[in-house]
Amino acid sequence: MRSASEASKDKGAPRSQCHALVVRGCAPHHEDYWAVRNNESKQMPRYAPVPFPEVKLEGQFWHERLDTVLARTVPSQHRKLGEYGILDSLKLPNPPPPLRFPRHANGFTVQVFWDSDVGKWIEAASYALAHRRDIDIENKIEAAIDDLEKAQAPDGYLNCWYLGREPEKRWTNLRDNHEMYNAGHLLEGAVAYFQVTGRRRFLDIMERYLDHIYATFGTGPGQRRGYDGHEEIELALMKLYYLTGERKHLDFATYLINERGQQPPHYFDWEREQREGSESKQPYVFANYEYSQSHKPVREQNKVVGHAVRAMYLYTAMADLAAELGDAALKRACEVLWDDVMKTKMYVTAGLGPSAHNEGFTHDYDLPNQTAYAETCASVALIFWAQRMLHLDLDGKYADILELAMFNGALSGLSRDGEHYFYANPLESDGTPTRWEWHTCPCCTMNVSRLVASVGQYFLSSAEDGVAFHLYGGIATDLEIAGTKVSLREVSTYPWSGDIRIHVDPETPAAFDVKLRIPGWSNGATASVNGETIPTGSAERGYLTLRRQWQKGDVIALDLPMPPVRLYAHPGVIMDAGRVALKRGPLVYCLEEVDNPGGRVQRLKLPRHALLKAETRSDLFDGIVTLTAEATSLEESEFAELYRTAPPREAPSTLTAIPYFLWANREQGSMMVWVPEAVAN
Amino acid sequence: MRSASEASKDKGAPRSQCHALVVRGCAPHHEDYWAVRNNESKQMPRYAPVPFPEVKLEGQFWHERLDTVLARTVPSQHRKLGEYGILDSLKLPNPPPPLRFPRHANGFTVQVFWDSDVGKWIEAASYALAHRRDIDIENKIEAAIDDLEKAQAPDGYLNCWYLGREPEKRWTNLRDNHEMYNAGHLLEGAVAYFQVTGRRRFLDIMERYLDHIYATFGTGPGQRRGYDGHEEIELALMKLYYLTGERKHLDFATYLINERGQQPPHYFDWEREQREGSESKQPYVFANYEYSQSHKPVREQNKVVGHAVRAMYLYTAMADLAAELGDAALKRACEVLWDDVMKTKMYVTAGLGPSAHNEGFTHDYDLPNQTAYAETCASVALIFWAQRMLHLDLDGKYADILELAMFNGALSGLSRDGEHYFYANPLESDGTPTRWEWHTCPCCTMNVSRLVASVGQYFLSSAEDGVAFHLYGGIATDLEIAGTKVSLREVSTYPWSGDIRIHVDPETPAAFDVKLRIPGWSNGATASVNGETIPTGSAERGYLTLRRQWQKGDVIALDLPMPPVRLYAHPGVIMDAGRVALKRGPLVYCLEEVDNPGGRVQRLKLPRHALLKAETRSDLFDGIVTLTAEATSLEESEFAELYRTAPPREAPSTLTAIPYFLWANREQGSMMVWVPEAVAN
Repeated sequence: MRSASEASKDKGAPRSQCHALVVRGCAPHHEDYWAVRNNESKQMPRYAPVPFPEVKLEGQFWHERLDTVLARTVPSQHRKLGEYGILDSLKLPNPPPPLRFPRHANGFTVQVFWDSDVGKWIEAASYALAHRRDIDIENKIEAAIDDLEKAQAPDGYLNCWYLGREPEKRWTNLRDNHEMYNAGHLLEGAVAYFQVTGRRRFLDIMERYLDHIYATFGTGPGQRRGYDGHEEIELALMKLYYLTGERKHLDFATYLINERGQQPPHYFDWEREQREGSESKQPYVFANYEYSQSHKPVREQNKVVGHAVRAMYLYTAMADLAAELGDAALKRACEVLWDDVMKTKMYVTAGLGPSAHNEGFTHDYDLPNQTAYAETCASVALIFWAQRMLHLDLDGKYADILELAMFNGALSGLSRDGEHYFYANPLESDGTPTRWEWHTCPCCTMNVSRLVASVGQYFLSSAEDGVAFHLYGGIATDLEIAGTKVSLREVSTYPWSGDIRIHVDPETPAAFDVKLRIPGWSNGATASVNGETIPTGSAERGYLTLRRQWQKGDVIALDLPMPPVRLYAHPGVIMDAGRVALKRGPLVYCLEEVDNPGGRVQRLKLPRHALLKAETRSDLFDGIVTLTAEATSLEESEFAELYRTAPPREAPSTLTAIPYFLWANREQGSMMVWVPEAVAN
Repeated sequence: MRSASEASKDKGAPRSQCHALVVRGCAPHHEDYWAVRNNESKQMPRYAPVPFPEVKLEGQFWHERLDTVLARTVPSQHRKLGEYGILDSLKLPNPPPPLRFPRHANGFTVQVFWDSDVGKWIEAASYALAHRRDIDIENKIEAAIDDLEKAQAPDGYLNCWYLGREPEKRWTNLRDNHEMYNAGHLLEGAVAYFQVTGRRRFLDIMERYLDHIYATFGTGPGQRRGYDGHEEIELALMKLYYLTGERKHLDFATYLINERGQQPPHYFDWEREQREGSESKQPYVFANYEYSQSHKPVREQNKVVGHAVRAMYLYTAMADLAAELGDAALKRACEVLWDDVMKTKMYVTAGLGPSAHNEGFTHDYDLPNQTAYAETCASVALIFWAQRMLHLDLDGKYADILELAMFNGALSGLSRDGEHYFYANPLESDGTPTRWEWHTCPCCTMNVSRLVASVGQYFLSSAEDGVAFHLYGGIATDLEIAGTKVSLREVSTYPWSGDIRIHVDPETPAAFDVKLRIPGWSNGATASVNGETIPTGSAERGYLTLRRQWQKGDVIALDLPMPPVRLYAHPGVIMDAGRVALKRGPLVYCLEEVDNPGGRVQRLKLPRHALLKAETRSDLFDGIVTLTAEATSLEESEFAELYRTAPPREAPSTLTAIPYFLWANREQGSMMVWVPEAVAN
């Protein structure tokens, strides 16, 4: 992991002097990174992220996912980028590959996103390199950077769609055509690649592009007051700012956040007027400003609206900026928006955005199951936002959602084999949808791979005098706390069990806080240090704080009982009326037909008082915990008609549920999360 | 109503010699029409339609609907056609109005349908004129015909989209751009206008256009073997053939039906190859051949697939042709397709096509309620198909569906005020959707108006020696049966009551059949003639045949008891598991929030054994029958969270249901057809 000071020092170094690949085992140097942050911040969040490569995943659950992503997902994604012409689209000035996807009347095609797909793949692949050096992957990244370097215009502009097809139209349609969004994803890739390898060529390319963008947009004379129709660059700029400490990146992110939704005139209106020809003046089908959260200035927004991924990326950057600038109005907006989504708009799996129409939000309690869009990207982006909220204000409610999204709505997007995906994550299926090998718009594929490849960053946060555990699952890390190097090792089979041991080994005895998240879902948690019981009732806002003089060999035991529970939805969620969801620990469960043979799972009803049994099944996947119960079943076989006056016969049955994120990895069949409930049967 | 022989005689008459408007009271002359049919047919269906103007609607139910359509719907639709530029689009060679709706990459825009909207409006308006002369409407029709006449190319071609914008591209994209579909709707308009007014100018225009089409397409040398991507013209040609008796129209309809789906090469593939430029080679998003039922020859089709309206129009023409040609393979295909849709693909409201994506069919039992597409046009077209099946084979199962679609899935598409519409007819709503004033693609608006304006045609069929009653609701007509003029008057308040009286008044005593449909939904029907009980057990295939010497003053009494019933769906319909639909007579009921205040109707559960009470409510609409029952209600008010482990509280409540077709005519709110059922509560 490269520090900000090193990044600054390297600025003028010739490109051939690339730093050796930094792999696990190299000492982290993130002090300078946070030092920059401390100097710049008006209000420093006390706890801040521990960058991911410093956290080693040892537990079986994440180890398996990570290995799959490294061995299968990252390489196969590169193959797909090739097969779909996405890599070729960077090879300018060669003619761009033939148009593969149709253009809307306003010129839009999904191909305008392609730069972002490359950026996200480089980001995911860079994280993969942090775990395991791979010359082949490095060469592939370098080859893409070669192409980007050649494609870059002399003035720094770098968008391969426009450079390849219609260079004269650059910056004419920020509303629809994602130039800044692409820049943001390329930038995230460049930051990740630099952090992991120390190679700054890609970062240099992107900084040149940013200088062009900064010169073009802004409130100064001759500048356009534009911002992107798809938020993304804002959070990427914050990453660059955290890395380099250069104020201009923070300033431009601030400009983008402040400018968004200002009117009249609305920038997208002004921009549309500038474009010529009746065709280009066609409204884009989603050109209402709620779609892109630009309907009003962000500090005035109090309802979560529009395209879900856009919204989450925006809120992530807003939370970053609120912390960085000490901006109370921005913090308040984040909190109000958080409450809105949590109280009325989130699936029980932490899926977001019920509607395929706008890939986003509709109205309160509109959470249909079978048609749930709940885009993988949106749950991944919710994790980003939750992490930023957690560092803005260390409250377990944010970590609860981070965890919920991680284990359910996000992880469901990647198949067990690491090469199939869900773009939409429905909570119910009659057996039709299956995972895809690839998507017309492959945004979700690389979002889930970059998440898993960097998952370590979400387990812990550190502060000057403490460490906070957010997630559990078997990790090890060395941190500098209270002036002492502290080895931390958390051992558990979480999420299958809540029986957790944390070994705290400071080099020398030292007093600091160890904060343990007590999940919102848990009931009856117990804790001890070296066998001495700690009352968990003293936990505040989701964290139990253990402050003491820590010594080598100290062991914390935390037990989070995980009885299976039933969840009921607010009656406003009409699809869930009379239904119940099953959950154990952080995992939401579902019924899948393969475990419940005999017809569609929707034939099953769970009696309200039936005992839910958790059962460890070593024969399923790598060993999971299933839930089983007595149930009743509607009989299909004797129902010849489509409709009739006699009710279907019901017979006693049983049901078996598996974790939701594992569905659609075996034979095709029906699935449901919300199970019809039989009351007083 | 003009007869076929008159139509032929008029052929060469100068256009100024228009016949006087034929209005109700003029003697019908449809004998020749059927004579032609008898001569031409290999297998004459015994019972054949009684054209609509000969059936006078006297019952309150249809009288009200008809009056609304005449007074409000037809005039307001003409206004909308003007406001949306559709009427202006006919005014060639003036420049066409600016493009209002975006074009797909392949050139498609909904504006390519516009000719059809005009044709359908003329058809509906013509039917309206049959009920009530209206100079203003006649002038508006004539003005549109003026424009069409001027627009027509010297070679007969008449498609205003192509003539106005890209005349060189005519006939290059039958797959997507609806040229024959438009011709079919214009032709239906021309036939209706001639039938009602005797004016044949529009018919002449269309016959010139057809001659051009017949010269262009076919299996002869130099002809293209094309057929339309949207079936419609086939059934329109059959109408023209029935009207004129000219074999060429039957032959071309036969050609279109026979050619559909033949391959290799598939015509749409061949045609695409002919088009130039990469953009025009873009696949249309629905260009799989199931979408347009051209995936295989029609006689080999055994699953209902693709776009629902396309499918229904095709099957309508197939049934017409099967009867006309005595084609057993075509009849068998119709029957197999009928069974498929009835057993696995029809909503309980007779809505068809669950998916908005393809406006059509998906897989067996896929009948989601809230997202039901169930396009109004599809239910209207199902009525067309059911009528043709009924005349191919007089079986009450076809009339049952005709009636179900009429009173539910089709009629729901038109608001009580006659000026608002549903394009999609969901069976459940959380309160969001409301009726529209108009649509981007206004096909449904004129489909429902032409249906209501001509609804009389569906009540009865006649044969040489009999008459068959299919629908009830208060009608009067004079028919020639068994050589005698017979006045028939059916008196009832159907569908509110099944208490039906039929007055049979032959001018002279005569022996003939009176067939009474005993609906499939009825149980315990009783019948009598002049007070003498007739055992209804002798009914065959849905019809009770009364054969006797009829005399003036004879009165048939038919009583169809209408207790409210519960319907259950096949357990394969996953959305309806644990739910029940309420029905009384032909009417499907729904719960609407305005009648069930206190929150979304989805909070309500109906206990399985709760008594359903039918209650006449003169205060609602013009007097309807509601259903009420004891129920339980989930309490929203005390549920603060989105999800929680404690179930929502339930309280005793009541529920009130209204006929489905009447929903969304009062204040906005939630609605559901399939009511959660409480078992053993």
